[in-house]
Amino acid sequence: MKLSTKHLLGIKDLNREDIQLILSTAQQFKEVLQRPVKKVPSLRDVTIVNLFYENSTRTRMSFELAERRLSADVLNFAASSSSAAKGETLLDTVNNILSMKVDMVVMRHSASGAPHFLAKHIPAAIVNAGDGINEHPTQALLDAFSMQEKLGKLEGLKVAIIGDIMHSRVALSNMYLLRKMGAEIMVAGPPTLIPKYIAEALDVRVEYNLEKALKWCDVANVLRIQLERQNQPLFSSLREYNLAYGIKRKLLEKLGKDIVIMHPGPINRGVELDSDVADGPFSIILNQVENGVAVRMAVLYLLANRDDD
Amino acid sequence: MKLSTKHLLGIKDLNREDIQLILSTAQQFKEVLQRPVKKVPSLRDVTIVNLFYENSTRTRMSFELAERRLSADVLNFAASSSSAAKGETLLDTVNNILSMKVDMVVMRHSASGAPHFLAKHIPAAIVNAGDGINEHPTQALLDAFSMQEKLGKLEGLKVAIIGDIMHSRVALSNMYLLRKMGAEIMVAGPPTLIPKYIAEALDVRVEYNLEKALKWCDVANVLRIQLERQNQPLFSSLREYNLAYGIKRKLLEKLGKDIVIMHPGPINRGVELDSDVADGPFSIILNQVENGVAVRMAVLYLLANRDDD
Amino acid sequence: MKLSTKHLLGIKDLNREDIQLILSTAQQFKEVLQRPVKKVPSLRDVTIVNLFYENSTRTRMSFELAERRLSADVLNFAASSSSAAKGETLLDTVNNILSMKVDMVVMRHSASGAPHFLAKHIPAAIVNAGDGINEHPTQALLDAFSMQEKLGKLEGLKVAIIGDIMHSRVALSNMYLLRKMGAEIMVAGPPTLIPKYIAEALDVRVEYNLEKALKWCDVANVLRIQLERQNQPLFSSLREYNLAYGIKRKLLEKLGKDIVIMHPGPINRGVELDSDVADGPFSIILNQVENGVAVRMAVLYLLANRDDD
Repeated sequence: MKLSTKHLLGIKDLNREDIQLILSTAQQFKEVLQRPVKKVPSLRDVTIVNLFYENSTRTRMSFELAERRLSADVLNFAASSSSAAKGETLLDTVNNILSMKVDMVVMRHSASGAPHFLAKHIPAAIVNAGDGINEHPTQALLDAFSMQEKLGKLEGLKVAIIGDIMHSRVALSNMYLLRKMGAEIMVAGPPTLIPKYIAEALDVRVEYNLEKALKWCDVANVLRIQLERQNQPLFSSLREYNLAYGIKRKLLEKLGKDIVIMHPGPINRGVELDSDVADGPFSIILNQVENGVAVRMAVLYLLANRDDD
Repeated sequence: MKLSTKHLLGIKDLNREDIQLILSTAQQFKEVLQRPVKKVPSLRDVTIVNLFYENSTRTRMSFELAERRLSADVLNFAASSSSAAKGETLLDTVNNILSMKVDMVVMRHSASGAPHFLAKHIPAAIVNAGDGINEHPTQALLDAFSMQEKLGKLEGLKVAIIGDIMHSRVALSNMYLLRKMGAEIMVAGPPTLIPKYIAEALDVRVEYNLEKALKWCDVANVLRIQLERQNQPLFSSLREYNLAYGIKRKLLEKLGKDIVIMHPGPINRGVELDSDVADGPFSIILNQVENGVAVRMAVLYLLANRDDD
Repeated sequence: MKLSTKHLLGIKDLNREDIQLILSTAQQFKEVLQRPVKKVPSLRDVTIVNLFYENSTRTRMSFELAERRLSADVLNFAASSSSAAKGETLLDTVNNILSMKVDMVVMRHSASGAPHFLAKHIPAAIVNAGDGINEHPTQALLDAFSMQEKLGKLEGLKVAIIGDIMHSRVALSNMYLLRKMGAEIMVAGPPTLIPKYIAEALDVRVEYNLEKALKWCDVANVLRIQLERQNQPLFSSLREYNLAYGIKRKLLEKLGKDIVIMHPGPINRGVELDSDVADGPFSIILNQVENGVAVRMAVLYLLANRDDD
């Protein structure tokens, strides 16, 4: 089986079969990762460049591990020490890299749409590792993998996405994916952080009260408050955010039901998530991280093998 | 066959046979790079350190790819996170690295002559990846390879080097190489950016008028305006530079002849080169980048195999 | 044989047999490093992350080379481009990395005790590559290896540690190790840089006069003046420090005996050590660097093979 797309630019472009193919391939790679020998020769002789124009630890390391475990040749390119500073255009930088016979580009960029622009101009396969406030498709795929692993299905699942919906590429990719897979979606957070008309545009429920959202859902995907992205504050203080929207143990216990707590990381402990929730029995946060490597191996493997199948 | 030198410090130290040997070896590696499996085991068990005291994207990546495709072990050393900041001398840093049994040093430094100084004091082979305003020998070699590939020869070729001749290590290395290989050389640019006495010292033509230079030459090697190197501006404005010395499509069409346009990158589009020239039919700029990997493989291979032949 | 500890947090936790085991294993790896093929497959399929929260050249490169020569998979993590800047806790960062199935963590941190804290909370083996002003155990091990290699023994050896004893993790790790191995220890330096009660606490001699210290010892381990760590100066000027405590050739010649000069690097030439001493016949400084790779190979090998022996 093959993906219907040449690139992974966003969940928006995938169909249901693509998503199922990625998740089932990731399941096989997850089994590989439990073995003492975690390496497979699948991408031997494939050269991949990690082109990160924004700082990142976990995403870059997760991709790099996925690439190495597929036996690819890996080049890292950090924007801070790059020609970007010398005024070169993005397209020139990437064309230069590709002239050196690079097969795939994993790319993070602060501008929404940067990988889509590139995809129109270059022959190599592109994996979007996060573009501005648009999409972060591998995060949504690993979130879906983790939910399905924990609860056995995506169809019919009630998922609340909680926090700064407005600026979150994780939220947008999750909403696209969950809709395609038949889950029910609610977004919850302060009115200032939820885009107007989102209910109509993306067919999601909107809830401003945290307790009501948690009562409704099977899964709470708690977003990081990205302080580094807000030029002007959209709520009064971190303390007040925590009082109104921080997930606390006491609140979860009051619900009297099982719930799954997810977070894309890095966590601001004591802001969107209290420590006893992050480390508590409902949390699958570290499973998400583990599954991220398997999901990224699946994406890279399927894109690389699209042509020669 | 062997190189006459132990290091590649500059084109100045190479003889005609050395240059021919590098170019013909690069031709073989270029063929390897067209194959699905681009790796050769030639430098297995050779450890190479990339010691970059100046930022660089394309040169560092090109060297790193060349090293990996020769199966060398590669260590990257970026000066910003280094002991240089702790006041260690260059010689101490390099001696320390060599004590760890490193076989070759690829080095970029802002001080002209830094690799030549090192070569007097350490046993490992040194490849100069650019030293101040002195030389950038692998760039001149890949430029020569690309000219020869496009036009079939170097002997008798008319090459105009255009732009900031004064501060360009690319220009100097190209002039040394082209003279040794029997090409005719012209330098063109604003009088403030062309060193006095260069005509006599290096036996080159000097031209201040761009159109006349383009009319004369088979190949125009257009230099980057290195804004980051000029402490005080040497021309009035980028716009005026572009008006007088920027290469424009209209100008090329007026010539009524074939011409080869080269540029070492990164390009300042709209300054020294307009976009429709950089991406146009006369440009071999991306071929230069591609050839860079093959040429660097040749240099590393020939230096590493000098002793045990 | 096995180490008695799961981690290498400090020399304090090792017993005499551990130290002897590391030194004898390092001897075998040193022999491997003399061969043309320096790689052994010992840690194939082991993934090691180098987690450096402080800048470092030689220590990071030495660990990376050791890891590669053991055929481990290596991930580098530099704190400056990390989630640390996004407010993530150290424990969260490391737990995330470990969820990606990383087997060992080599860690440098500016906070004394950071690796000890981690060791209580995570399952992976941790190697301390320097924590604040506490310990730098692999440095002490390579110092011991180098002394033993040069002088045939550690037992009964007279070792003077000279310089900023107060802020030096190298000094503390050396004192722990030398005591366990039966050497005699003297610390020498200006009174402001020697902790009070150190004589009683660590059973060492204290000497404020450099010449007397040199007369007494077989080995002088000269510490680096870590200008970057002193918020307020602890001596009047570098020039005066050099006059009173800098090691000079003339002084060594006056002693009329053989002496071994060591330094952990990077050297401040003309401050704690004059150039003709650093490069002179008594110096084994570059041997220390060479031995560092073998010692770190031994530590990683022994920790990785502790469980499955």
